[in-house]
Amino acid sequence: MKASLDCYPCFFLQALKCSKIVTSDEKKILEILNEVSLALPQLRFDVTPSEIGRDVYHIISAKTGVKDPYRKLKDEFIRKALSLYPDMKKLIESSQERLMTAVRLSIAGNIIDFGAHAKFELKEDVERILSQDFAINHYPQFCRSLGKAKKILYLADNAGETVFDRLLIEELHKPVIYAVRESPIINDATREDALLSGIGEKSEIISSGCDAPGIILKFCSKEFLKAYSQADLIISKGQGNYEGLSDETRPIFFFLKAKCSAVAREFGVEEGSIILAKAHQARAR
Amino acid sequence: MKASLDCYPCFFLQALKCSKIVTSDEKKILEILNEVSLALPQLRFDVTPSEIGRDVYHIISAKTGVKDPYRKLKDEFIRKALSLYPDMKKLIESSQERLMTAVRLSIAGNIIDFGAHAKFELKEDVERILSQDFAINHYPQFCRSLGKAKKILYLADNAGETVFDRLLIEELHKPVIYAVRESPIINDATREDALLSGIGEKSEIISSGCDAPGIILKFCSKEFLKAYSQADLIISKGQGNYEGLSDETRPIFFFLKAKCSAVAREFGVEEGSIILAKAHQARAR
Repeated sequence: MKASLDCYPCFFLQALKCSKIVTSDEKKILEILNEVSLALPQLRFDVTPSEIGRDVYHIISAKTGVKDPYRKLKDEFIRKALSLYPDMKKLIESSQERLMTAVRLSIAGNIIDFGAHAKFELKEDVERILSQDFAINHYPQFCRSLGKAKKILYLADNAGETVFDRLLIEELHKPVIYAVRESPIINDATREDALLSGIGEKSEIISSGCDAPGIILKFCSKEFLKAYSQADLIISKGQGNYEGLSDETRPIFFFLKAKCSAVAREFGVEEGSIILAKAHQARAR
Repeated sequence: MKASLDCYPCFFLQALKCSKIVTSDEKKILEILNEVSLALPQLRFDVTPSEIGRDVYHIISAKTGVKDPYRKLKDEFIRKALSLYPDMKKLIESSQERLMTAVRLSIAGNIIDFGAHAKFELKEDVERILSQDFAINHYPQFCRSLGKAKKILYLADNAGETVFDRLLIEELHKPVIYAVRESPIINDATREDALLSGIGEKSEIISSGCDAPGIILKFCSKEFLKAYSQADLIISKGQGNYEGLSDETRPIFFFLKAKCSAVAREFGVEEGSIILAKAHQARAR
């Protein structure tokens, strides 16, 4: 998925939001926005939004010297998610369709995001999403693929959401490789966040090798690309990973909430929709 | 009121919206956004948002050769507003508080705006605003000022809203000078729009001499400044005019809907609030 014109103002919204987290110095923030403003016209726009986003966040890090501006917020959301873990676990265990409930919870976890249009109340939003209809629902195909799968690759998105991923991984009963970002970018999950969320007990954690807020295959490590090519089922969480993999032919299932108009348009759904879509069947009819 | 950091992404939202109205050529739109992007860091940011907005819209005009991108939309909204005129007139005539109803209608007309966050359904929104509580309400002071006033200056905002202004002017029963923009900028009212709305029958129309989407005194004509200094009551419609006059000591009443977080913050009210505020008493308590 290529960046759309609608992404352009959004890069400034994101830069502003991130800058405000790093500093309260308005002069500094204006300098950052100006630097993003001068940089954007130099960038190619026929790439994924997460590739441009990567450059924008690099500018903020370089300008402020803060490498992980979302560290505190990430810790906070992992803690919040862990505090919900016991109840969510019980919910799954008492459910007539354990896997479906775990799948829904993992998608519900995708509401945790500080990138684009982030206003969320974790507990309330999770409860709402649990009863929300899927705009695209390839769950039956997912179950068939899961039944046959021997090697599952699970592409992480945000820190905190990782706890919800853990719940799903515990229901898969198959070997899972869990791929995180190489280094901090927005609130995306790194190895540290996955470990804090308890993912390490149930799956092997690898880095994608890529420091963008989404998988961009050309930037990924050999280790990741090997896991990617060998997996017979790939669970891809969130918009950032979708953006880089939307045209791929691997057995990918996209689990996400469509948080912005650009991604919603790609899927042919309303903004705010929740989606479980197999790659190449991913548009609503 | 100075531009805030929150205005920065908003300039790109506005540039994108306006560009899409002028052309469907995505390459061209990207060129425009890139040009805005290169220009913004060169601009002073300690001025009003409408002063920066003026420069942004000038870039779009220069780049596309279209001097009045909102012409068709302005005509459409004047027509829509005129079609509501007879019913609104009856509403005022059957009202126990004719002036208050006309004041409310004139503020309701301020929902017509394509600048910032424009999603509106004219008829429905007008009806809602008629029963919405004011977040700031200096109506009693306004009535006292009106009682003594001999020369009223009325600062127009958007085309279409002009029809709502006409309804209020017809209830003032005093000489009114109606000041419009010097030349087309977004959907702001020019002389042509005021005439199309029937304003010319009840008041003298002058130009502010300024082509920004708001009054900026340093850019205004001598004729306007004379009217401004001689008026003993000034009705200022909308955010753009407020931005340039917020620190003034003239007898100004601001009639507006707070459409963005920056202006809402200035007044100390919620976004979406409707406001009738006397200058220098303009913050909610």
